[in-house]
Amino acid sequence: MSKYQHIRDAAYLANMKLPNLNLVIFTFGNASEADRQLGVFAVKPSGVPYEVLSPAKMVIVDFDGNIVEGDLRPSSDTKTHAVLYKHWEHIGGICHTHSTYATSWAQALRDIPIYGTTHADHKTVDVPCARPMDDEMIQGDYEYQTGFQIINCLKERGLSYQEVEMILVGNHAPFTWGKTADKAVYNSAVLESIAQMALLTEQINPECHRLKQSLIKKHYQRKNGPDSYYGQ
Amino acid sequence: MSKYQHIRDAAYLANMKLPNLNLVIFTFGNASEADRQLGVFAVKPSGVPYEVLSPAKMVIVDFDGNIVEGDLRPSSDTKTHAVLYKHWEHIGGICHTHSTYATSWAQALRDIPIYGTTHADHKTVDVPCARPMDDEMIQGDYEYQTGFQIINCLKERGLSYQEVEMILVGNHAPFTWGKTADKAVYNSAVLESIAQMALLTEQINPECHRLKQSLIKKHYQRKNGPDSYYGQ
Amino acid sequence: MSKYQHIRDAAYLANMKLPNLNLVIFTFGNASEADRQLGVFAVKPSGVPYEVLSPAKMVIVDFDGNIVEGDLRPSSDTKTHAVLYKHWEHIGGICHTHSTYATSWAQALRDIPIYGTTHADHKTVDVPCARPMDDEMIQGDYEYQTGFQIINCLKERGLSYQEVEMILVGNHAPFTWGKTADKAVYNSAVLESIAQMALLTEQINPECHRLKQSLIKKHYQRKNGPDSYYGQ
Amino acid sequence: MSKYQHIRDAAYLANMKLPNLNLVIFTFGNASEADRQLGVFAVKPSGVPYEVLSPAKMVIVDFDGNIVEGDLRPSSDTKTHAVLYKHWEHIGGICHTHSTYATSWAQALRDIPIYGTTHADHKTVDVPCARPMDDEMIQGDYEYQTGFQIINCLKERGLSYQEVEMILVGNHAPFTWGKTADKAVYNSAVLESIAQMALLTEQINPECHRLKQSLIKKHYQRKNGPDSYYGQ
Repeated sequence: MSKYQHIRDAAYLANMKLPNLNLVIFTFGNASEADRQLGVFAVKPSGVPYEVLSPAKMVIVDFDGNIVEGDLRPSSDTKTHAVLYKHWEHIGGICHTHSTYATSWAQALRDIPIYGTTHADHKTVDVPCARPMDDEMIQGDYEYQTGFQIINCLKERGLSYQEVEMILVGNHAPFTWGKTADKAVYNSAVLESIAQMALLTEQINPECHRLKQSLIKKHYQRKNGPDSYYGQ
Repeated sequence: MSKYQHIRDAAYLANMKLPNLNLVIFTFGNASEADRQLGVFAVKPSGVPYEVLSPAKMVIVDFDGNIVEGDLRPSSDTKTHAVLYKHWEHIGGICHTHSTYATSWAQALRDIPIYGTTHADHKTVDVPCARPMDDEMIQGDYEYQTGFQIINCLKERGLSYQEVEMILVGNHAPFTWGKTADKAVYNSAVLESIAQMALLTEQINPECHRLKQSLIKKHYQRKNGPDSYYGQ
Repeated sequence: MSKYQHIRDAAYLANMKLPNLNLVIFTFGNASEADRQLGVFAVKPSGVPYEVLSPAKMVIVDFDGNIVEGDLRPSSDTKTHAVLYKHWEHIGGICHTHSTYATSWAQALRDIPIYGTTHADHKTVDVPCARPMDDEMIQGDYEYQTGFQIINCLKERGLSYQEVEMILVGNHAPFTWGKTADKAVYNSAVLESIAQMALLTEQINPECHRLKQSLIKKHYQRKNGPDSYYGQ
Repeated sequence: MSKYQHIRDAAYLANMKLPNLNLVIFTFGNASEADRQLGVFAVKPSGVPYEVLSPAKMVIVDFDGNIVEGDLRPSSDTKTHAVLYKHWEHIGGICHTHSTYATSWAQALRDIPIYGTTHADHKTVDVPCARPMDDEMIQGDYEYQTGFQIINCLKERGLSYQEVEMILVGNHAPFTWGKTADKAVYNSAVLESIAQMALLTEQINPECHRLKQSLIKKHYQRKNGPDSYYGQ
């Protein structure tokens, strides 16, 4: 048995949740799980349908994007995963989808405003939408630069990747992350729900406002932080 | 066998309907069933996924919010349930979800206008949207105050909780209730359907009007009240 | 075996399709099948969940609305079915739902414009929306009058019930009919699809126009009428 | 066994995917697979429900629209398939649906703008919407002319059918094609997803813009063309 079996299993299970949560059709998404001590992550192979996926088909890649183990070509977005793992030392999972509503906000080049407690339960700010990158970066090492585009967007806005675990890449689609691949997939589903409700909120009331700060803090803190009282 | 087995079972079955009716993802909802003679209710444990729920995992709580029986922490919304049971003596079940359309109306801070007979089959007025509470109440005993926010909204509008079994809590999400947990869950599904159709109605005809009173009364009375002739 | 077994079976099967086609939740719909020689129809019992429905639970009713056979109370809309069967001698099935998009057009009090060939495959005119009836009719024999409201709407517009097998009852919901209950249910699903696409068409292009007459005729005639060449 | 068994099987499997991908209700769609050496294609029989379809029920037709083998009448759209196979020698499969969002764009008579990478992954231009044909062509050999309407639309716009594998036929619905029937069905699902997200993008931001050229090229080339690095 491979010494990477535990992350193969975790990445496999996380990837299989994507079609079940209606976050991907065909092969339009991927998730990965890292082992920080071994310095590698397991990621979905490129273009392989979910129906024929297995833990053994996951590809093991290091944080510079080099294949360490596996017969298949890794996801075309692998370098983006590698850059994020390399620069953000406290994350253990990443997820990328083209889910309908989140992708539409990315295409519209808009941050998703924080309109309700479903949003505030998970973070205290709007979901950031990173601007499309410059032409020379697109023509260069595109997937590698996508990682920096994400990192720089958070940095410029003064946001912590440990608090804001989701982003829209402008004109493209969402990326999410977390302690595990499973948490990253969870964040993708939460983001899709937030994205749909934000549009509906604006359609129901074009004059709608963001949630007030006291309510944002209350909901964020009851689910996160030292005094949280949600869950077991 | 626990003397609370009957409400454990009822609360369990009601909670399990929530994902099946597409009213919750993950753990974003909870339902409870009360036994008025015993002065307690059974409620979903906090943050426990529906796939691993069981009657034994329900938590028994009294109407002041004290845990009476159970190894798990109850839903973070438990105090809201407790306040409603304590002040509204004719209800036996409560349900809370973040269902897509109802939550979007709550985020938009709008009452849902009564546009058709599907709405009038269940009540004769708009679905009320309670304003977000004052900051000092949010910073105080938030879930407890949410219960009073709901009670006061109905009181201020002169509505009976026995006739209007649903409300939107502004910037948050819907709460529903009824004689049983099962009826409360039914009301959550009806509310979600009404909420979706009200938005679509406004999109199809921005000049649309509420249903006229004679039609509201006819539909409400044929399904409810002394001369109803719906059902067996 | 009841001499009504064949229409009990047909009505049962048609009713069971309604939740499967996502046209009803809970008990918000009903379908019936008539035997014109026996002068009766089989209709869903009122308020009985689809999960526990059976052919034996269907109620046999004559064209004046009198119960002929059956232990349960028939659908609260039974008199509407009876009036239509009595006055329209060439129909053998009727269906009523509160399906999301068709009901929203009914609530918006708008006819559904004929925007494409999906619509023209089934009829050559807009789907009519009957105005809400006068107060004295609502306070009188409401369900009976709903039948006349439908009949009169078609009459006033010079439409044939054999060509236009669907209508929206203003502020209420759709009714459909056909040679059989199965065809009536089919028409309900077609109507829901047309209703959704008509709204989307207007959202995509607020300046959109109806289909031109030559295209309407071509599509209607290839699926209907003497020279049709659709199907086997 | 028929010498056409391989295309019967391929056409059957492709057709069966249509309801599973939520692209058709009832019989509102059809797919075909060609064998270029034999000069024929297998196509869905007209009006036969998907539940009772089988490879044996597929109809074998030549590129002039003549039935070569089969007991059932072929799809009413068969001549459109035949014209496309005859004039586009590099395609091996065709698919036609009335899928909700793509059909709504067709009804709205608008091209679908290229708003994101999901679109650019599959082509570099807007999805073209062909104008409705002239009355004399509609009254003539309609389905045959629909084929030419499609061919001419691409020709007038200087588009290659090998690069742009999808089109909207104005006021009607989408047609897609590809090397195989399976690829054509895949294109129908991609088109439906693109169509939904394009409308949402415009609703989220009425001032939204098309993707910039550098990003279009990057995404198209990484999935298609000589230097693609997507898939295995």
